[in-house]
Amino acid sequence: MTLQKMARKPSPAPEAASPWSGAPDREQQREAKRQAVLSAAAQLFNERGFHATSLDDIAARLQVSKPTLYYYVKNKEEILLGCVRQGLQMTIEGIEASRAAGGKAIDQLMACMQVYARIVMQDFGMCLIRVGDEELSPDSRQELRRLKSEIDQAFRRLVAEGVAEGSLPPCDPKMTAFVIAGALSWVGRWYQPGGAYTPEQVADQCIATLCQGILKRPGG
Amino acid sequence: MTLQKMARKPSPAPEAASPWSGAPDREQQREAKRQAVLSAAAQLFNERGFHATSLDDIAARLQVSKPTLYYYVKNKEEILLGCVRQGLQMTIEGIEASRAAGGKAIDQLMACMQVYARIVMQDFGMCLIRVGDEELSPDSRQELRRLKSEIDQAFRRLVAEGVAEGSLPPCDPKMTAFVIAGALSWVGRWYQPGGAYTPEQVADQCIATLCQGILKRPGG
Repeated sequence: MTLQKMARKPSPAPEAASPWSGAPDREQQREAKRQAVLSAAAQLFNERGFHATSLDDIAARLQVSKPTLYYYVKNKEEILLGCVRQGLQMTIEGIEASRAAGGKAIDQLMACMQVYARIVMQDFGMCLIRVGDEELSPDSRQELRRLKSEIDQAFRRLVAEGVAEGSLPPCDPKMTAFVIAGALSWVGRWYQPGGAYTPEQVADQCIATLCQGILKRPGG
Repeated sequence: MTLQKMARKPSPAPEAASPWSGAPDREQQREAKRQAVLSAAAQLFNERGFHATSLDDIAARLQVSKPTLYYYVKNKEEILLGCVRQGLQMTIEGIEASRAAGGKAIDQLMACMQVYARIVMQDFGMCLIRVGDEELSPDSRQELRRLKSEIDQAFRRLVAEGVAEGSLPPCDPKMTAFVIAGALSWVGRWYQPGGAYTPEQVADQCIATLCQGILKRPGG
């Protein structure tokens, strides 16, 4: 059994092959398969936990042999790093897109909360929340902390801008950003696909509660 | 070196010794020392992580030998279970006390949020948030999940009662309880003793943000 059918979304063929790249198609196929390995692993980590998941389990889920996996990844730590890094990069890209769209800070903040809430309900984002980074080497941990801090800083900046433009009441942006991050990250802990609400409904309800507060608003 | 000086708060002597208990003083001393072991371990788990903490580290922190530890605890898993169980039981007791005080549901809910926020900034509560329960046996994990679910149910019930009495706007109590639990649990992840705010200030700010919402209230 080959890894041929593992790739769910093969990358599109390049517009024009670069004379410098040796075999672009093969490289792309390899990358797509590596993605499939990370995807299957993230699902298993989220279901059973990192420790309880073996490379054998990942190979079985993909219906390939364990030696085949080693062509794409070195070990379980590298897989975890790949999963968490991807969850973080998806978030950073989403935040950057929301920022680039411009408009009021409050609208950008709402868009970023949507991005983050949706990502923690997906495999890589859920993995980011559910699996600690204790297993990783100090270097990898440092890289992940840098990415996490980038996300944290983006939220703090938006909250500060929201206060400056008058959409948000005066507050310590650091604390408000932590309340937002906590409530939305928690979704990645308790969310089970196939529950009473779709991911969209979960995101909308949590964000509405964060925005409006749990107390009744005057006249509300 | 004995464990004599490990006990920070020796239990008070019993009013009257029961004829059925063999040696109450010795038992109490042993329990106080066991508590000191759990306390030192929780601090180390929170600082370095569960995996990176060895029984040698715990013994060194207490200035006793490793064999001495084995008189109080069996292994690292038992220590972790003890720490997390204690964090959960402190929370449940605090919630029960807030409920027993009676009054409006919203006041009980506020008191319970205070209890929970304070506990996640203390050693055992922080341990509950920072260390996963993956390391534990299925039986222990099940016990902890039962205790966690008890806390979750208490918050949901208070939110539902708050809606019924008109203090809270209509909502799905499960979702609102998750937003509260997420924002407050997150404190246990980022809080560092000796930071810009005292635990009281952190709890007050987070709870105010949760109650009032991050958006400006009309006329606010």
